[in-house]
Amino acid sequence: MTSAYQHLSKTFQRLSRFGHLSAIAGWDMQTMMPAGGSQARGEALAELSVLQHEILTAKQVGSWLDQAEQESLNDVESANLSEMRRAWQQAALLPAALVEAKSIAGSRCEHAWRQQRPANDWQGFSANLKEVVKLSREEAEIRAQANGCSRYDALLDVFEPGMTSAKLDKTFGDLKLWLPELLQRIVAKQAQEPVERPTGPFAIEAQRQLGLSIMQQLGFDFNAGRLDVSAHPFCGGVPEDVRITTRYKQDEFLSAMMGVIHETGHARYEQNLPKQWLGQPVAHARSTAIHESQSLFFEMQLARSADFLQLILPQVVAQMGAQPALNPGNFVRLNQRVKPGFIRVDADEVSYPAHVILRYEIERALIGGEIEVDDIPAVWQEKMQAYLGIDTRGNYRDGCMQDIHWTDGAFGYFPTYTLGAMYAAQLFQAVKRALPQLESQIRSGDLQPIFDWLQQNIWQHGSRFSTQQLITHATGEDLNPAYFRQHLENRYLHN
Amino acid sequence: MTSAYQHLSKTFQRLSRFGHLSAIAGWDMQTMMPAGGSQARGEALAELSVLQHEILTAKQVGSWLDQAEQESLNDVESANLSEMRRAWQQAALLPAALVEAKSIAGSRCEHAWRQQRPANDWQGFSANLKEVVKLSREEAEIRAQANGCSRYDALLDVFEPGMTSAKLDKTFGDLKLWLPELLQRIVAKQAQEPVERPTGPFAIEAQRQLGLSIMQQLGFDFNAGRLDVSAHPFCGGVPEDVRITTRYKQDEFLSAMMGVIHETGHARYEQNLPKQWLGQPVAHARSTAIHESQSLFFEMQLARSADFLQLILPQVVAQMGAQPALNPGNFVRLNQRVKPGFIRVDADEVSYPAHVILRYEIERALIGGEIEVDDIPAVWQEKMQAYLGIDTRGNYRDGCMQDIHWTDGAFGYFPTYTLGAMYAAQLFQAVKRALPQLESQIRSGDLQPIFDWLQQNIWQHGSRFSTQQLITHATGEDLNPAYFRQHLENRYLHN
Repeated sequence: MTSAYQHLSKTFQRLSRFGHLSAIAGWDMQTMMPAGGSQARGEALAELSVLQHEILTAKQVGSWLDQAEQESLNDVESANLSEMRRAWQQAALLPAALVEAKSIAGSRCEHAWRQQRPANDWQGFSANLKEVVKLSREEAEIRAQANGCSRYDALLDVFEPGMTSAKLDKTFGDLKLWLPELLQRIVAKQAQEPVERPTGPFAIEAQRQLGLSIMQQLGFDFNAGRLDVSAHPFCGGVPEDVRITTRYKQDEFLSAMMGVIHETGHARYEQNLPKQWLGQPVAHARSTAIHESQSLFFEMQLARSADFLQLILPQVVAQMGAQPALNPGNFVRLNQRVKPGFIRVDADEVSYPAHVILRYEIERALIGGEIEVDDIPAVWQEKMQAYLGIDTRGNYRDGCMQDIHWTDGAFGYFPTYTLGAMYAAQLFQAVKRALPQLESQIRSGDLQPIFDWLQQNIWQHGSRFSTQQLITHATGEDLNPAYFRQHLENRYLHN
Repeated sequence: MTSAYQHLSKTFQRLSRFGHLSAIAGWDMQTMMPAGGSQARGEALAELSVLQHEILTAKQVGSWLDQAEQESLNDVESANLSEMRRAWQQAALLPAALVEAKSIAGSRCEHAWRQQRPANDWQGFSANLKEVVKLSREEAEIRAQANGCSRYDALLDVFEPGMTSAKLDKTFGDLKLWLPELLQRIVAKQAQEPVERPTGPFAIEAQRQLGLSIMQQLGFDFNAGRLDVSAHPFCGGVPEDVRITTRYKQDEFLSAMMGVIHETGHARYEQNLPKQWLGQPVAHARSTAIHESQSLFFEMQLARSADFLQLILPQVVAQMGAQPALNPGNFVRLNQRVKPGFIRVDADEVSYPAHVILRYEIERALIGGEIEVDDIPAVWQEKMQAYLGIDTRGNYRDGCMQDIHWTDGAFGYFPTYTLGAMYAAQLFQAVKRALPQLESQIRSGDLQPIFDWLQQNIWQHGSRFSTQQLITHATGEDLNPAYFRQHLENRYLHN
């Protein structure tokens, strides 16, 4: 007889296969599709997501979940069952009408934003955003009542299970105490250390070859993935076939190069998720923050270290040609430059958390009903002044209109960027303890021990453990922001 | 109240959306996917085809089809209803388990073939092919019993509604009477007309640019399609986003160029199917042979004519560089060279039918159970000797392993190539009658009247009429192979 767990397992495998098609068609839409295919593709993907929702919320799934609790399951199966329940609850809670209304309002807001942002049109944008916020509050209210938590915490939990605003307030509150001063000291120190920009143009094909050669060095499996180009870099596809993208500029190659390294971190996590459980929820990456911890481990902890930069410099010179700015000292300074600015996605790792905390505080208040959409610009200005000393008055386009996240109601996502940065620092410190020769290994290109450690401690576990268990198991303690502070001080003040 | 026809219409629109995802994921598999993604992709596509099968064969569909017959429908709706019934009958016959097994076996066989063909590994390939043949025979048997016809005719009907092996035997039997002698006479004539091969290497990027510029001239809509590279050239995607492919060799550019023109013929048909009915079966291309008639109209009738070759020669020289072999007379001789050879896809239009008849006779016997997979190499050798005087012993790679079609069980497809060639000749003759200045229009690049004629007579009708009605409406008579013979004699003997 087929057990309830087996029924569930089959259902989720089916969902995973449809997810595969959605991932590839989504990747294609960003990388390959001509503009004329847009409407038909949107309709095809929407049809598929309706189907996925129907399969996940079918009546039997709820009963199978209850029955499976009584069945004899091993540890992995139990963890898988928890993840199944979590996915089911998140989907089943929301009335179809709300899902559809939110999807339509989000589409409209995002679509208009593409014109409104360059036009600095806050009035037009805020009208659409109000509808998105209204529906996101409804969603949050339903989730909050089911979870017995605050509205914002309920949204946070979608991206980062187990995380709460109480924990975030503590962690981010600590950061706010020391970050602004640290930033000032670093900026002052670097003002004494001139840096020379490399002179382009840099051929796109050479940049692509450089990216591919570094991906190779970082262990990307080209038998199970590709590198392509899209307007907004991302890591997509499926674990068996991971699609990462970057974008190239002719006059500057470092941001594309670091972008490739960042996405390679995401990709290696995906490529090394537990093969034997693929297709089941327990094989998924643990959370958004843990995913980001892998990309930031690769980009910030590993690739922007002086040791790694020394390792890859010959490849860089081979592809880009020798020039004075590509001397070893300047190459490190180029990749460790700290410069507070308006734009989050261009920010260095020291000012980045300020961008995130600001957004976190605003979106929490917004979802909680403590502020309204009309209040955002003033709060944005006040906090940008306080955290980064930057005046954004009247400049909505480079201020509160710069990100895509709020346009389609992804409230609760922003904090995971900085959680990821803190996990990355904590993990790198643990790798250092495990590998006493780490720095010379990096300089000589012997990176396999690092990857083995990540495979052993993070990648192979998928969602088998909670984030807290995973990180405690890997590093000996729960999230501890002290490592992030230590990392920033070591790299930017004590070098 | 929703009518049965409206229910059906909604159901088929949904199927069309899933078909969109299948087409794009299938295109990706041939053009972009790394080898490691193969198994997961095969499973995902198989899952989708099971779903499509379930939707199409759901109980209500049968009753809606019956009810809709009683509803008041206009001509297009009636034609749509017929196509719906045809699709439903074809699908409802097959058990879901057979559909899934065939899809998985086909994926596996095709994927392994990509390595096995270059390795000349008949043993490895035949093991996979046996499974595909076994499942195709099961399919054929089920269809044959339902249609009251032979196994092979039942498969033929899937690609070419209305066609039977009795009709094919007659048409191909006629061809076999005059083709070998005509071929000999042409080869003897051309032996007196020396031709000079262009000297490479020819940069891939220049070949690609040449292809794009000819696609532009042929009216390909780049806002609704792309050109890429695959091992076996094809036209895929969806009418809103048509994906054609070719393959390049460094030492020879004409086959890639003509390949692009061929697929552009397919693409223009797809891009110009009736927009107002897209998503419904009546908007589909009429049949495989009519589809092939469009690609062969573009490649054989139009592009290999002396007039068109004169038109594009300056573009060819601009991309490939001037050289003696690219003088006007030699350029025509190059593109009208007849040389019996091993490879069907490289064959000239005179020897091509021999390749098709050979495959038709083998697959008909294979599906009928008169021969087995292990017999294929010997039968192949015997017929290649008889029809083309070519020895293929031991050379599986350029013999019975050269084509992709049998790998995923597309038995019944090959005959449509030669039917397409015959329809193309008949259509071109009709265009000539309609456009008395055709030759000078082609030489001057005024191709729009030709496209308008095809749009008017073929493309815009989708599947509104039967093949016989369509061709009779367009040319004044049903399929008449005399035009094909006349075309070959005019081009190759009387020039």
